[in-house]
Order: sequence, then structure tokens, then C-alpha cells
Amino acid sequence: MSKTIKGFSKLSKSAKIDWLATNFTHDPISFKETLSSYWNSDKVIQQLHDEFIENTISNYYLPYGIAPNFIINGEPLAIPMATEESSVVAAASLVAKFWSTRGGFKAKVLSTEKTGQIHFFYTGAFEDLQSYFESNKQRLLDSTNDLTHNMRKRGGGIQAIQLIDKTNELANYYQLHLSFETIDSMGANFINSCLERIASQFKKEDIEIVMSILSNYVPNCLVRAEVHCPIDELGKDGRAFAEKFNQAVQIAHIEPLRAVTHNKGIMNGIDAVVIATGNDFRAIEAGAHAYASKDGKYRSLTHCSIDDETFRFWIDVPLSLGTVGGLTTSHPLAKLSLKILQNPTAKKLMEIVAVAGLAQNFAAIKALITTGIQKGHMKMHLQNILNQLGATDVEKTQISNLFKETTISHSSVMTALKKLRSMS
Amino acid sequence: MSKTIKGFSKLSKSAKIDWLATNFTHDPISFKETLSSYWNSDKVIQQLHDEFIENTISNYYLPYGIAPNFIINGEPLAIPMATEESSVVAAASLVAKFWSTRGGFKAKVLSTEKTGQIHFFYTGAFEDLQSYFESNKQRLLDSTNDLTHNMRKRGGGIQAIQLIDKTNELANYYQLHLSFETIDSMGANFINSCLERIASQFKKEDIEIVMSILSNYVPNCLVRAEVHCPIDELGKDGRAFAEKFNQAVQIAHIEPLRAVTHNKGIMNGIDAVVIATGNDFRAIEAGAHAYASKDGKYRSLTHCSIDDETFRFWIDVPLSLGTVGGLTTSHPLAKLSLKILQNPTAKKLMEIVAVAGLAQNFAAIKALITTGIQKGHMKMHLQNILNQLGATDVEKTQISNLFKETTISHSSVMTALKKLRSMS
Repeated sequence: MSKTIKGFSKLSKSAKIDWLATNFTHDPISFKETLSSYWNSDKVIQQLHDEFIENTISNYYLPYGIAPNFIINGEPLAIPMATEESSVVAAASLVAKFWSTRGGFKAKVLSTEKTGQIHFFYTGAFEDLQSYFESNKQRLLDSTNDLTHNMRKRGGGIQAIQLIDKTNELANYYQLHLSFETIDSMGANFINSCLERIASQFKKEDIEIVMSILSNYVPNCLVRAEVHCPIDELGKDGRAFAEKFNQAVQIAHIEPLRAVTHNKGIMNGIDAVVIATGNDFRAIEAGAHAYASKDGKYRSLTHCSIDDETFRFWIDVPLSLGTVGGLTTSHPLAKLSLKILQNPTAKKLMEIVAVAGLAQNFAAIKALITTGIQKGHMKMHLQNILNQLGATDVEKTQISNLFKETTISHSSVMTALKKLRSMS
Repeated sequence: MSKTIKGFSKLSKSAKIDWLATNFTHDPISFKETLSSYWNSDKVIQQLHDEFIENTISNYYLPYGIAPNFIINGEPLAIPMATEESSVVAAASLVAKFWSTRGGFKAKVLSTEKTGQIHFFYTGAFEDLQSYFESNKQRLLDSTNDLTHNMRKRGGGIQAIQLIDKTNELANYYQLHLSFETIDSMGANFINSCLERIASQFKKEDIEIVMSILSNYVPNCLVRAEVHCPIDELGKDGRAFAEKFNQAVQIAHIEPLRAVTHNKGIMNGIDAVVIATGNDFRAIEAGAHAYASKDGKYRSLTHCSIDDETFRFWIDVPLSLGTVGGLTTSHPLAKLSLKILQNPTAKKLMEIVAVAGLAQNFAAIKALITTGIQKGHMKMHLQNILNQLGATDVEKTQISNLFKETTISHSSVMTALKKLRSMS
């Protein structure tokens, strides 16, 4: 028995699981049963998923749900979401419905620039570097021709290359800063390949290249989504609601403790669509939160105004997304998600995802300023608690009725279930 | 045919899918086949997953893999990771192995405080508010006794309550700021329930409560993970490697365009464990990125030093995690992940997750400053491209051999496969 191992990645899947079961569990048989109960019965499908990463031993299920009734720029859409958080799809559906009779969502891509940098140190004279760069600029760009060929055919490619002096921040530190248009692909592999190629051609004495890599900070790959309507269409006490809503957004602009949670709620909606469409949610998260901190203080990504009796609520968020390449075309459910969304371009997907974020934030603020967040959340979570406690379908119905107006907590549900069972 | 619908959530799963297939696809039959090919053949398991969220129509697979050979505070662990990114588990495994012969990882929880706020406006005199707060403080805390009972038994609960004057930032804006110890639970439901209860008891003329909600900004729920070794143990050119590595980390401290991507790579490792253990990755992402921007400029979460011939690399990251409650105990694979990790406390899970982030960052920087990021990444991604192109097992082997030393791109692989097929 050994808890470390050589050559693990070369073992077969079952040998990997055996090693794990023997060395890290006390119940190897039930351990293996649980793992294999999540395998797909179709071996071809399973092999596809096994090969996405290294050392795959099973499939982690994220619930895949549908939020219908989104009207985006006049087009009705049902949005697929992959999320484990119980209230996200329910909230999205409610808000989609609410705005569907108030003009729906408007969304617009403001920019699509992506960037990458070759980070290097240089100890010589700046003029020499500058003249080397200027006289070799075209050669550097041309060196990527085989890599950019297809992208250029689709209207994208490298848009610009600049030499940037960063020596006032770190001694001898410079960048080649490139901007890219990657059309319908997220572009990470494309950008990194171009950067590495150029770096390999950027050779001069006193230049030491540190690294070449895209940036996930994409403030110029920006989309805006919004809703607006006359205040009196917001409900029977429309003005009071609008004003309180506006206060909640204002608080998220000046108080980071609130802003972080406020934006976290936005990302609940955004990530669910990002994952469902096979995109990289870490890239999206990093870009969005960094954007939220861009003026030196962490702030809300959404904005609210009340002018001339009109309530307006919008989000500006950087989203680097793809609808071709990567998992978007190789994960069957990611492909299916894009199909449900009518096979959007990357720009259209940016609009849809921004809308999902805005909708989620609207739902959260609406709940927070009226009933409180716990009511809706725990209502959804009640089923999970009941499943955990092994409640039968009959018990589930009885307990759900019981908790319609009562505060739900794990222990209160447990007590109620015990009581119910002792009575029967 | 209608692309909007009433009462969708009340439809049966198959009626939901029928509506979707009819109104949003051109091939309803194959659409339904794809969706159902991802259902679990065990109806009990499937129902459990269906009930986690609303409108569930299938299971979105994230590959679930194992990175072995982590030594954390002397204990060997195999870390379960759920991620779609092809290189994450491979990178984690390589780095775990590398450090396993150099003392392993050290990790330490620095603090475990969580907070929540009741945000309110108040238009009266501050002294009146203050005296109302002071004389009612105990009553407010006592009002949560039924909610905090179990948590107090385990050593947690509400730690403090403060009245905070924010009127210099927003007119009439104040907070009740509470801090919590939630032991082994992430605590979101607990904190929100306590806050809502206290808010319902905090009643005085001129007080208007806006909302009550936990904060996902948790700078005082912090963990540190680190590796260190003598420079000459880093490899045959240890000093040059250490210095270049240090440069790369320095760049991520002063250049946000790099810092965002640098931290994104850290989150690749962190989120994979967070998801595998049933925790909420949006909360973790929001807290980590906001922490990275805490001094007014977005910076690296990891740090590096070279002192007295010792290379040291560490991360400080806020992580609010649970090992009880929520999905951690209701998702069978989350439970299994915790079992593989030897059923850790929340504090121990914080250490493991921080190590996973540090390891991923080490792998990324090592690749970036030596071979470049694309080599390892595309090697893993090659299988995905080949699967997408419908390559047979024989073709996969041949193409993989062909691309051992060549730049991999989607189009170069496609060309090679075409050529291979035309020759056979």
C-alpha cells in the first residue's frame, strides 16, 4: 500500500480507480460502484469525455436546466444553464417572464478586441530597441502567416503590435503588446500560438524574453445588456420599488463588501450559460472581476437610473466567448446548447450571456429588497435537504406544504420530518 | 408553435424537452436522443440530480479526474478535480510529483472570519441610532438563538455585531456589520437567515432596511500555501530558473494585463477542487479576485522570493469553503471527493484548495518561462481535436506521433489527417 505512485497517468482507468480505492478509502467496493454509476452506458460517449482531460475516472454532473421566455433584441430564446445552485434557473425564468411583457432585454456588443503580450527584459538603450522593433515589425507579423491564414480569411487576425516601455514600473521591463480579432472563437490557442511564434523571432542582444501569453483582462471586449420601462409598469408600487432597487445598486457601487456579492450573483447567471456552451468560466470570471476593480475600487458591474419616470437597469461586462473551437464543438451538450440558442455568433452569445447576468442580478436585488433572499433560495433547497434525509415522495409533499410560510433550515426540516414519522 | 410559454416549470421533464425540441430545433428526434443519452440509467440517481435545480433536462458532464502525489503538511493526498480544461489535471500531477521530493507543500489557515451586513438608510440623528443600537444589541443577537443553536454547539455562531456609519460615502447609509464563525459549513444559508432575522427585529422610526446579505468578500478567511527548496534542487540550472520564475511573478504584481491571466491560472486549479467537493466556485472566484484588487491595483495572488539560496513560492488566498451542508453532502460525487481527501474539516479543505491553486500557478509559470504554454496545452488538446475530426484509434496514434515536435493547431491536425487518409 502506497499513497504516492509513479506512472499513474499511464495506468488504465480501472487500475487508477483500484489504486485510489485501495489507498484512500475504507470501502473500495462501494467507492467503485459510486464512481461507475456515473459512467455513460454508451462507451463511445464515455471515451470522448474521458479524453477531455488526463486521469479521468468519472463524470461530474452539473444539473443542466432551461430558463425559457427570454426576449433579447426582440427574439424569444430559451437559455440553457449548467449550475449546481438551486435558485439560479428558477430566478432566471421568473425575470425573463417579467421583462417579456415590458419590452424584453436589449443587448449590444460594444467592442471585440482581445490582447496578448510578450513580456521581456532589455538592458540596452531604448532607441536601439525601438529601431529594432520598427524595422522588424512587418517581419514579426509575417512570421505568423501560416497561423493566421484561416483567421484572416474569416475577417480576423492580428490587428496591431506595439512596443511598450514599462521600465518605470519594473527595471528593464518591456512588452510587445498585440491586439487580435478572433471572430467566433475565444481565441486563446490562436493568440498564444501567434505570440510564441513572434517571440521566437524577436531576437536581439540584451533582450531576454520571459513569457508570451494572452491576457484574460479584456476591457475592450465589452457587451452591454439592459432593461427599461416606465416606473408605473414595475408593479403596484412601482416608484417605491424602483427607488429601493436603485438604492441597492448604489450601495453596490460604493461598498466593496456588497459589490463582491452583488457581482457574484451576476456571475451565477453568466457562468451557467458559459459552462453550458462549453466556454471557459475562469477566463470570464477573471475578466469580469478585474473589470469591476478597474477604477481602483471594486464596484458593481450593473448600473441603475430613474429618469423621466423611466426605470433603467443595465450591465457593462467584458466577455471573451467562442462559438467555434474548444469544447463548444466537441462536448455534445455544449453543441446542443448552441443549437438551443439558434447557433449564435460569438457576438450574439456575448449578448445572451450578458442578459443572463443582468437577469440574475435583477432577481437577486428584487428578492433582497422585498421578501429577502432566503425565501426563494430555501424553497429550492428544501428538496435537496429532503433527499439528503431520505424522505419519500409522500413525505416530500407533506413537508413542502408545512414549510410554505415557515423559515427553512436543515435542522427545522429534520425536526419536522422526525415529527411526521413519529406520528405515522 | 410558440417560443414563449406559461407554466413551463410545472411541465414534466419530457414535456419540457418536447416543447424545447419543437420550438427551438430542426431535428427534435436527434435532439432528444442527445439529451437522454446523458441521463443516468439509475432513476433514483437521476431524480436526485433533477431536483438540485429547476427545469433540469439533463446532466452536464465535467470530466472528473485525479491528480495524485500531493504531499501537504507531510500527508500524501490524491486530489479530485472537476474541470473541462485539458491541461489542468496533467499540470497538477506533474507539479505534485516535482515537489513531493522537495519537501512537499506547506499550508496554514490564517483566519476563518465570515461577514454579513444589514444595509439600511436612516434619516434621524446619529446619536439616537447609536443609542437604539447599543440598548438593543443583545436583543437582536438573542433573536437568532433558535437559528444559531446548532452552530453554537459546534463552537461557531455570531462573533460580533457593529453599527457602521457610511454616510460619508452615501447619504443616510449605515450598516449593521456582523462577523461569523461557521466551522465546517460554508455558512451562506446560516448567515443570511441570521441577518434576515436581526433585520426583522431592527425597527425604529427613520430606519429603512434595504437588504440583508452575507459578503463573499472574505479577506479574513485566509489560507497560505507554500513550497520552498534550495535553489540548486530546482534542476540543473536552478538559479537561472528561479530568477526567471521570480521575474514572471514580479511582472504579475505590477502589470494587471498579466495579473488577471496569472490569477486565472490559479483559479483553474482552485475551482476544479471547489467544484469536485460540491462548493460554490462563483463565491470563491469573487472573493479571490476582489482580494487581488484590494490595494487599488489588480495584482498576483502568488508571491516569490529568493533568499539565502532558498527559492520560496506562496499564495495567500481567501477561501470560504464547506465540508458539510449544501451539495457537499447531497451530491454523491462531492461526498466521494471528500472521502478521497480523507474527510477533511473546512480548514483542511482550505489548505488543499490553496495548494491546488499554487501548484497550477507553478505549472503555468514553469511552462511559460521554458517551453511556452502551448506545447503541453495542445498536446492534451490534440485528443479533442482528433475526436472532433472522427479519427480512429489507429489514426490517433499516428497523428500523435507526428505532432510530437510540431506546433499543433486545429487546421494543421486536420491537414495531417487528410493526408494520412489519402495515403491509406
